[in-house]
Amino acid sequence: MRTKTPNESRTVMTDLVLPSETNPLNNLFGGELLARMDRAASISARRHSRRITVTASVNHVAFNRAVPLGSVVTVEASVSRAFKTSMEIFLDVWIEDRFTGERTKANEAIYTFVAVDDTGKPTEVPPLEPETDLEKERYAAALRRKQLSLVLAGKMKPADATELKALFTS
Amino acid sequence: MRTKTPNESRTVMTDLVLPSETNPLNNLFGGELLARMDRAASISARRHSRRITVTASVNHVAFNRAVPLGSVVTVEASVSRAFKTSMEIFLDVWIEDRFTGERTKANEAIYTFVAVDDTGKPTEVPPLEPETDLEKERYAAALRRKQLSLVLAGKMKPADATELKALFTS
Amino acid sequence: MRTKTPNESRTVMTDLVLPSETNPLNNLFGGELLARMDRAASISARRHSRRITVTASVNHVAFNRAVPLGSVVTVEASVSRAFKTSMEIFLDVWIEDRFTGERTKANEAIYTFVAVDDTGKPTEVPPLEPETDLEKERYAAALRRKQLSLVLAGKMKPADATELKALFTS
Amino acid sequence: MRTKTPNESRTVMTDLVLPSETNPLNNLFGGELLARMDRAASISARRHSRRITVTASVNHVAFNRAVPLGSVVTVEASVSRAFKTSMEIFLDVWIEDRFTGERTKANEAIYTFVAVDDTGKPTEVPPLEPETDLEKERYAAALRRKQLSLVLAGKMKPADATELKALFTS
Amino acid sequence: MRTKTPNESRTVMTDLVLPSETNPLNNLFGGELLARMDRAASISARRHSRRITVTASVNHVAFNRAVPLGSVVTVEASVSRAFKTSMEIFLDVWIEDRFTGERTKANEAIYTFVAVDDTGKPTEVPPLEPETDLEKERYAAALRRKQLSLVLAGKMKPADATELKALFTS
Amino acid sequence: MRTKTPNESRTVMTDLVLPSETNPLNNLFGGELLARMDRAASISARRHSRRITVTASVNHVAFNRAVPLGSVVTVEASVSRAFKTSMEIFLDVWIEDRFTGERTKANEAIYTFVAVDDTGKPTEVPPLEPETDLEKERYAAALRRKQLSLVLAGKMKPADATELKALFTS
Repeated sequence: MRTKTPNESRTVMTDLVLPSETNPLNNLFGGELLARMDRAASISARRHSRRITVTASVNHVAFNRAVPLGSVVTVEASVSRAFKTSMEIFLDVWIEDRFTGERTKANEAIYTFVAVDDTGKPTEVPPLEPETDLEKERYAAALRRKQLSLVLAGKMKPADATELKALFTS
Repeated sequence: MRTKTPNESRTVMTDLVLPSETNPLNNLFGGELLARMDRAASISARRHSRRITVTASVNHVAFNRAVPLGSVVTVEASVSRAFKTSMEIFLDVWIEDRFTGERTKANEAIYTFVAVDDTGKPTEVPPLEPETDLEKERYAAALRRKQLSLVLAGKMKPADATELKALFTS
Repeated sequence: MRTKTPNESRTVMTDLVLPSETNPLNNLFGGELLARMDRAASISARRHSRRITVTASVNHVAFNRAVPLGSVVTVEASVSRAFKTSMEIFLDVWIEDRFTGERTKANEAIYTFVAVDDTGKPTEVPPLEPETDLEKERYAAALRRKQLSLVLAGKMKPADATELKALFTS
Repeated sequence: MRTKTPNESRTVMTDLVLPSETNPLNNLFGGELLARMDRAASISARRHSRRITVTASVNHVAFNRAVPLGSVVTVEASVSRAFKTSMEIFLDVWIEDRFTGERTKANEAIYTFVAVDDTGKPTEVPPLEPETDLEKERYAAALRRKQLSLVLAGKMKPADATELKALFTS
Repeated sequence: MRTKTPNESRTVMTDLVLPSETNPLNNLFGGELLARMDRAASISARRHSRRITVTASVNHVAFNRAVPLGSVVTVEASVSRAFKTSMEIFLDVWIEDRFTGERTKANEAIYTFVAVDDTGKPTEVPPLEPETDLEKERYAAALRRKQLSLVLAGKMKPADATELKALFTS
Repeated sequence: MRTKTPNESRTVMTDLVLPSETNPLNNLFGGELLARMDRAASISARRHSRRITVTASVNHVAFNRAVPLGSVVTVEASVSRAFKTSMEIFLDVWIEDRFTGERTKANEAIYTFVAVDDTGKPTEVPPLEPETDLEKERYAAALRRKQLSLVLAGKMKPADATELKALFTS
């Protein structure tokens, strides 16, 4: 399979915050943003793999800024690292000021998707080659996140998580 | 007000065709696509004007290709011409093949939005300066469409629609 | 196939403007109204043809009046002209004042639907015979609109659009 | 207040059964039909009273026929009897065969609405004068239903429910 | 089939009142509550019967209290009596005060569901054995409600509705 | 403020998987489950704090099992640890087999919510006292997760994350 770049799976989803998506403070529900990001990430995963893809996990997501009703929200997703049958997708969420147009980072999130065939069985995906500095940094961090995820799930011993261990013992 | 380019209002909305949006043939309802395009166009109009914007009209829209459930649909909108308080928005709709990733043009549409203040009164918008050949072509055609719209609404005499008249009498 | 009248396909869809359908000014989104009209028009097309029908195009739609949250909106659709496999549907949209009950015309719209068989292939529809003066007027205008649409799509030369040409050269 | 006829509050809501409204057998969810009927009945109550109206109760509703995905459903509502501040609304639900166009009665339902002012306090509504035989029959039965409702709620002694008592003791 | 208790079909559905579900007074639409109760009741019916279940009827439902936007609503459903192929489901609806947490009864409702096989044909369900005093009371009343329903539908003569008759003639 | 137990904030949300919530494999979208869990967690956080609460973060969520259309899904949420103004909510997601009724664990998730006043400013919440063994275990792990979250956000040095460090260096 041909190696692909993050740019080939880049997905831009710009949309309004609709009245049906807001909480009692008139801000976007966290859960609605999670759902939008899931759709954007799934498109990105499909663009990389050209397969049916299903959500495998969502990494830690912090909601640092409220997103008010009527805002323009842009979700940008691209594959940050490909493993054998899974892909890590990195998402950046931006909102823009109605009057000045200034864009502000609202959130980051990391989803993992698995490529499957028609029967739902995992299937191989192309390798990823990062290009920019930011892409390379995210690519490297993806391995630490995968180890952390395996450790937390009890599928890897902390002692074997070499990348992570270095973080705490250096 | 500073003149803006179409690129400054370019809006990309990529999303899946969800099961709740399909007709009995399992294709995207025409009406749902119209609603998506309306949201993308309104964001584009807002990016150009930095005002509240409301739909004034939808030009002729042809639905040439069915868009099946699960498709990835990309709506791209940008302002094609600015008048005193109104903006014409040109939309291109693409679908991509799940397996090859090949993008196909599914639709074009043209919406007109008006910028309003908090009381709903029309308010001035910046001029538009087209850059590429395609942008210049759409800019020129926008005037013919405006005349046609005024003629059809009985607000302009056919004889005064100089751009249009040329089309039929040359 | 038996000739039918516009009355046989008349479709009345009265419903509320729900909170999930409004823009930041608390009025019905243009896109939502387009989606409602699409459903009403598709029912009308089905009543005329007794076939599966799909949206082929939307003619120029002007949004002249804002429709506030909680309004009662009535969409009335009926076939205005039948061609070989397609039907033009004319829609009138009314809103009524909550306290006086007075009905006001909010919009007009024209959609074109094609009748298809189970494989999606266009199939013949019955002829239409207009009855009232308004129906006859809309029936006549439908031919001009069809020519205009063919001209704009580059499928008919302006010189052959006899109905239209008369409008600009008389 | 001027006496009104059932015809003045008649409300016709024709719409498709959408994919998001169906159960595992691909038929319209009972709950969705109840929600549609509630909206139609509320419009009918508002047309009679020209007030804000809120659902007070739903009478016995039987779901005799499944309504398949893609069906055209027509809900017809009109006020069947007006009391001091409340109105009984009678609803007839029809589905039509896609190919023959034959209409079949799918359901009947009876809702009660109360007219309220801006603070939510009940407020008087105009009297109703039935015209046709069917309207007169429904008007008479409405009193029995009101007594039954009061008896079941423990707000009227069975012995005082003269209309009902006759039914069981004759 | 093994006799079951109401507790085995008890279903708790706690959820927020979302902005898309409210009427012009900012309270939950009656119709939306009817739809939620239908889903809870259908789960309860399925838990009792382990079959596909479809709504057969809704008994009288009174909306005694407005349920404001943002409220926490709890719908509790359990089977109150099983007949041959049908089940009566009793629902209690509670809302809780945001600040004190005090729970208040907002509604009661009674739905009837029928168990069906894959072709939609009614199929037998297990008997129900009530345990608590409240469950026994509801179990007894279910028979009266069934008779009333048959009388109102013209499928049973009032004189044969022994349970009901006693109510009015004692 | 009175100390509370996890039981006082326990929230049970049982609902069906609806057709509008499924992906091309006819399973529940990951994003929809995230949105449901967000609502359940927010109710749990509100029950603990009796305040307005907003999503602060979502911890790692693994989607181990597909949840098919028509499934009965139960989300159970309760506060697992309270900090000064924030609460960790632990969620267990169960699906049950239609025919046997057997419940299977589908997912676990951890959300963090912050209690805020009417202006959106964080405000104190009551302490939590775990009761069962499982609750005590989750309570202890919550501190490690908080440290991990601070380390990953660059707000705590790995060397100061004593709980975490022990994990990798023991």
